[in-house]
Amino acid sequence: MAKVADKYLKVDPWAIIEEGFDAERNRTSESIFSLGNEYMGVRGYAEEGYSGDSLLGSYFNGLNEQLDIGNPYKGIIRSLRYMVNAVDWLYTRITLDGEQLDLAKSHISDYVRRLDLRSGTYRRELVWTLGNGKKLKVIFTRLVSMTMSHLGLQQVAFQPLNFSGSVDICTGLDFGIIHEERGECMWNNLRSEGEGAVTAIMASTVNTGNKLFSGFTLQSSQPLQTTRVDREKFIGQNFTLELTQGETAHYTKLAVNCADSESSRTPDGLWNEGMELAATAGKLNEADVFAEQTAYWNGIWETSDICIEGDPENQQGIRFCIFQLFQTYHGDHPGFNIGAKGLTGEVYRGLAFWDTESYCLPFYLFNNPKAARSLLEFRYKTLGEAMQRAKDVDCEGACYPIATIDGTESCDLWQHSNLQLHVGTAVSYGIWHYVKNTGDQSFLYTKGAEMLIQISRFYATRGQWGQRTGEFGYFGVMGPDEFQLMVNNNCYINLMAKQSFEYTLETLRLMKEQAPAEYAEVAAKTALRDEELTDWCSKAEHMRIPVDEETGVYEEHDGFFDMPHIDIHSIPVTEFPLYSNWSYDRLYRYDMIKQPDVLMFMFLYSGQFSKEAKLANYEYYEPRCIHESSLSPSIHSILASEIGKPEEAYQFFEFATRLDLDNYNRNTREGLHTTSIAAAWMNIVYGFGGMRSDGPRLSFQPTLPERWTSYSFQVMVEGVLLRIVVDKNKVTLTSLNGGSAEVIVNGQNIKVDASGQVLPLGEGMIAG
Amino acid sequence: MAKVADKYLKVDPWAIIEEGFDAERNRTSESIFSLGNEYMGVRGYAEEGYSGDSLLGSYFNGLNEQLDIGNPYKGIIRSLRYMVNAVDWLYTRITLDGEQLDLAKSHISDYVRRLDLRSGTYRRELVWTLGNGKKLKVIFTRLVSMTMSHLGLQQVAFQPLNFSGSVDICTGLDFGIIHEERGECMWNNLRSEGEGAVTAIMASTVNTGNKLFSGFTLQSSQPLQTTRVDREKFIGQNFTLELTQGETAHYTKLAVNCADSESSRTPDGLWNEGMELAATAGKLNEADVFAEQTAYWNGIWETSDICIEGDPENQQGIRFCIFQLFQTYHGDHPGFNIGAKGLTGEVYRGLAFWDTESYCLPFYLFNNPKAARSLLEFRYKTLGEAMQRAKDVDCEGACYPIATIDGTESCDLWQHSNLQLHVGTAVSYGIWHYVKNTGDQSFLYTKGAEMLIQISRFYATRGQWGQRTGEFGYFGVMGPDEFQLMVNNNCYINLMAKQSFEYTLETLRLMKEQAPAEYAEVAAKTALRDEELTDWCSKAEHMRIPVDEETGVYEEHDGFFDMPHIDIHSIPVTEFPLYSNWSYDRLYRYDMIKQPDVLMFMFLYSGQFSKEAKLANYEYYEPRCIHESSLSPSIHSILASEIGKPEEAYQFFEFATRLDLDNYNRNTREGLHTTSIAAAWMNIVYGFGGMRSDGPRLSFQPTLPERWTSYSFQVMVEGVLLRIVVDKNKVTLTSLNGGSAEVIVNGQNIKVDASGQVLPLGEGMIAG
Repeated sequence: MAKVADKYLKVDPWAIIEEGFDAERNRTSESIFSLGNEYMGVRGYAEEGYSGDSLLGSYFNGLNEQLDIGNPYKGIIRSLRYMVNAVDWLYTRITLDGEQLDLAKSHISDYVRRLDLRSGTYRRELVWTLGNGKKLKVIFTRLVSMTMSHLGLQQVAFQPLNFSGSVDICTGLDFGIIHEERGECMWNNLRSEGEGAVTAIMASTVNTGNKLFSGFTLQSSQPLQTTRVDREKFIGQNFTLELTQGETAHYTKLAVNCADSESSRTPDGLWNEGMELAATAGKLNEADVFAEQTAYWNGIWETSDICIEGDPENQQGIRFCIFQLFQTYHGDHPGFNIGAKGLTGEVYRGLAFWDTESYCLPFYLFNNPKAARSLLEFRYKTLGEAMQRAKDVDCEGACYPIATIDGTESCDLWQHSNLQLHVGTAVSYGIWHYVKNTGDQSFLYTKGAEMLIQISRFYATRGQWGQRTGEFGYFGVMGPDEFQLMVNNNCYINLMAKQSFEYTLETLRLMKEQAPAEYAEVAAKTALRDEELTDWCSKAEHMRIPVDEETGVYEEHDGFFDMPHIDIHSIPVTEFPLYSNWSYDRLYRYDMIKQPDVLMFMFLYSGQFSKEAKLANYEYYEPRCIHESSLSPSIHSILASEIGKPEEAYQFFEFATRLDLDNYNRNTREGLHTTSIAAAWMNIVYGFGGMRSDGPRLSFQPTLPERWTSYSFQVMVEGVLLRIVVDKNKVTLTSLNGGSAEVIVNGQNIKVDASGQVLPLGEGMIAG
Repeated sequence: MAKVADKYLKVDPWAIIEEGFDAERNRTSESIFSLGNEYMGVRGYAEEGYSGDSLLGSYFNGLNEQLDIGNPYKGIIRSLRYMVNAVDWLYTRITLDGEQLDLAKSHISDYVRRLDLRSGTYRRELVWTLGNGKKLKVIFTRLVSMTMSHLGLQQVAFQPLNFSGSVDICTGLDFGIIHEERGECMWNNLRSEGEGAVTAIMASTVNTGNKLFSGFTLQSSQPLQTTRVDREKFIGQNFTLELTQGETAHYTKLAVNCADSESSRTPDGLWNEGMELAATAGKLNEADVFAEQTAYWNGIWETSDICIEGDPENQQGIRFCIFQLFQTYHGDHPGFNIGAKGLTGEVYRGLAFWDTESYCLPFYLFNNPKAARSLLEFRYKTLGEAMQRAKDVDCEGACYPIATIDGTESCDLWQHSNLQLHVGTAVSYGIWHYVKNTGDQSFLYTKGAEMLIQISRFYATRGQWGQRTGEFGYFGVMGPDEFQLMVNNNCYINLMAKQSFEYTLETLRLMKEQAPAEYAEVAAKTALRDEELTDWCSKAEHMRIPVDEETGVYEEHDGFFDMPHIDIHSIPVTEFPLYSNWSYDRLYRYDMIKQPDVLMFMFLYSGQFSKEAKLANYEYYEPRCIHESSLSPSIHSILASEIGKPEEAYQFFEFATRLDLDNYNRNTREGLHTTSIAAAWMNIVYGFGGMRSDGPRLSFQPTLPERWTSYSFQVMVEGVLLRIVVDKNKVTLTSLNGGSAEVIVNGQNIKVDASGQVLPLGEGMIAG
């Protein structure tokens, strides 16, 4: 693990603060200071125009473009969808005495930027000294409203420090933005007009015809005389603010963005809807907007805060993670998913992976169950695309794509899109995990069951019978561990498929008994045949799960134990990342793994494996794991906590919460590791908190990292908000919202209500 | 084997004849009627301009273009070279009374085309009826000189059947030709001029700067008044021929093409060289050119003919194969190799594969040993590129590319270029096979040994030790059998690498004894260390060769015997070719093979395996082989002959000689299967003739297909030209050139000289 922190930002419990401007770090900071509200996201770029290196990124969930791919083979995708860079609704140009503000060229001092986690705002302050000696303080504040999805607010304030005069502003909406990966603008202008107070533009994507309306109104501390500016793919307003030395003048832009990714509206319909929203937004009081945003975040922190005493860096880190997770997704818009980088960059193309169900879903499940259900609704909504994909690869049922933005497979590396089968089992696991912890049988008996049937069909037809072993399994696959490229009987996939078959059968058995009408409906809709049930039962029963009887170590795939050995610690640090420094084929020829397949299923179905089995497998696989997936260390940390290796647990946790803040992977510039952020939450709650959610009842076996004084976290269990506080002596559980819940702590059943329960911290549960 | 013949061409022992024009079959015929002389090749397109579907292909060995490929991973190629479509030196336009001849639009009758295998000419005849009722017979004859590499000759003759008048001709040199795969012209004009009698043009490839000069002179039965035509990338001459009813007028274009692929000449140098060659060619008498071509081919047929009595179709077929092999390659130009489609089309990009050493080399070895050596010289010349490739894939020594035109790896599918390791062992096998059968120790002790050392280095560093088995082998590989995409310990590769190590060690041991100076030189040049010899010895000794002890069946790779079974005969005919109709990943998940890996090494090192072992492995693998490689059936046929399955031997031979003439694979339109053509020769000589060339002495165990009356073939053995005639009763061996040779026939040592040896045909050696 050749990860080194780049300590740069100020440590603060409730804010991310950068002092001074560092052009080298600009893209990294743009990622970290991203704002979003699930509907849209915007990187922390300099809206006043910056001639240095920058990724001016503005993204909308669901707005995507298409790239065609030349490929002669059946079953390999021929086009993909990607999240497209969209309107720069923050566009601003500031001119004073003929000089234009540009961080790359202007003389700047006292530069500070601050992301405030309680008010949900991003603020930049600077002092601009002109060639003629005039000094102007400029303060940019922006927010993306968590309560009004379409609304973005930008406030620009000016304070002349040593002069009085006037500043010229151009503020606008720019669709001429370049999608960096493609090197071109992917938008065609449809219409742009100033109507009354609203200045607006509407454009559509070149290939997919996704439409986006953007409009704004202006408010100011002084009356504004505006002049419209029309350019290609751009509309704006020019105006002048009068400045008096020592006083602050400001203006506020209330921007409304309204996306139509599914062409459900006519151009006129969308335009009118947008104009109405923009006009309404124009009547808002900016102070009210700021206050509403703060109130929203107060609510979030009340239910979802994690408090760490004695570790300011991780305190800041975990709050940043929780903040970004809520910014990226909170389930207000079914049909959205969570891209690997959220709405913060173009790398990974805005695509969602199995991370959604495996890493993100637990966070939402215990913080915002509506969002958890909404994520599963995405899979239900895209069941048709998954069924088409199954056909494309000569199978039946539903093959959920390894990478997608709209339900279609959008990974253009066949070795991943055709061999990695773990998204379907992740969906099935997600349904199981969600229903088990929420009791939402109604979802299960309608949409859930339908998905489970189609998923089981896929795994029944993609799998084959080994000729020698007589067992069922998956040939020609890549597990989540991408360092074993094409193998037979990957243990993770085989076990997950077995679980999926069994859960489907159990669900259908229960439905027959408890909900015969729903059973009949889903059976009819899916044309379910009784032989299929027999078939799935047989395949689950005969599923190949290779294990070394002597050591209890699961073999990651057929032949893994014969793979040539490499001591991963012998690999020079300079050779990382291996993808860049090793010949592609060489990566796949050792007993070296990228991330933990065996340990992963031992975590997901924790209750099925003894502590001894976990220990044996951890001790075999951990020294072979290179952690080139940012999701890997947290799973190791969680297992290490459980098997009594607290020091290792803490080491693996070390960069979980600050992966992006300290730029451990040296690629935060491309965008945040949004789904890894969810693993940081799991690391604390499932790792140190020792929570397990796969059993009949939620359980905890808390430990306390030695360097922490105490920590607390909260989980929502069937409507009850539980707070768990762990300090050096005890574990305190309290219901915060009046209800009561039965849970297991250190193996003991307890009932928790508002009066709380105090238990001693187990022996040896403090690390170090 | 869902192959069906498309019987269309006339059967003739010495010619390929098509009667009537079929636009649907035009591209197929263009391939079949290709001419070439190793230096250049030209498809049988209509030189007078054809507005229908056509691939106007003109190719030069060594002239190539570069295509850049986006790829982020180390060890995967980032650019490739391909044979580029070049000048149309046959360009002709014929106009009569304002109408232009065009097979797609003109009224045509009595169309016949004929490729004459004894004169090496291609002739097209047609009668063109104009709108006004005039009938003009036109005869196009062309040749590409086998003795003057640069020279192409085109004769166009006119016979007005019912009128007298004049015809307008434009003849020229066109560099505006489109490379079909890229959809654009890859040439920049450098210079074009008419100087004296020579009209000439010179151009260079856009990305690689390969230069080509093309110039022509005209001769005619009547004085010509020409007018120069200059267009972009084109130069030509207009003239008029006077025609008298019933009489024939003609003109002849003597074209000279002079390529400079290695930029060894300045533009002026190449221009002057080309002009001189063209001026010299202009003085040739066309009758002499035709006569010289016929004499050349007579010589070929004297040494290399295969004569089949009682089977006119295979008689024609095998002569077409021999004709194409000599057209494609005869070793006059070291540095050339044999593309999978020779010089007859763009598919496979002109790239050479392992086919060269595995399928083509034996033909040349026993017909034209100079050409065999020249093929090996190509590998020596490109040793530097192979060493660079080894470095690129993190290995040492030389990694010969899976597909190449200039020595660099040019296969853009990483799964093939990074996983298929069998070209290096093919080169090593080729050296061994060549030296064994020619006794050319001098080649071995200089260039051969150097290649062997670098090849062994590669296989020593690419291989790894299995952790469980403790054996050495190759992990993450694809054998020649491309239906098992990424496996460990492919039996073919492991065995071939073992042979390669052993041959290298044996060669070096011999050199130490017999040629210590050469040994010292090659050891110094390659910085050979003694530990390497020990290392190779140990790796050869511990090479993993998995075999089922009970059945004697070699396991194609680790786990092959567990691969899910499919009855290949259960696959509907409509699903072929599988690459187009099956999901890409599905191809690789069965005990189904594309071509015979195990049987292949049992053929190459025939003497190492008993007949029983061959039988057991044939009976296991044959029913699992789908023959989607056109090289596959002949190997099966050869083995079937040996193990006493003459009916199967004949069935597998059935489409060997007429693969292209009868368009069995339905893709002859893309170009000829040039390297498969070599397998047809092997099928007769090694299959029915029962020749083996891997033992201490050449041996024969002839059989006679039941439907043949007799057949004969000839092989050159250390300077002695042996003729072997097999009829229903006997085998007759004669030396044709006065020498004598010792060979083995039916297990018996015999000496063959000019007086001949007659032996009875073995019992049961007639099929059926």
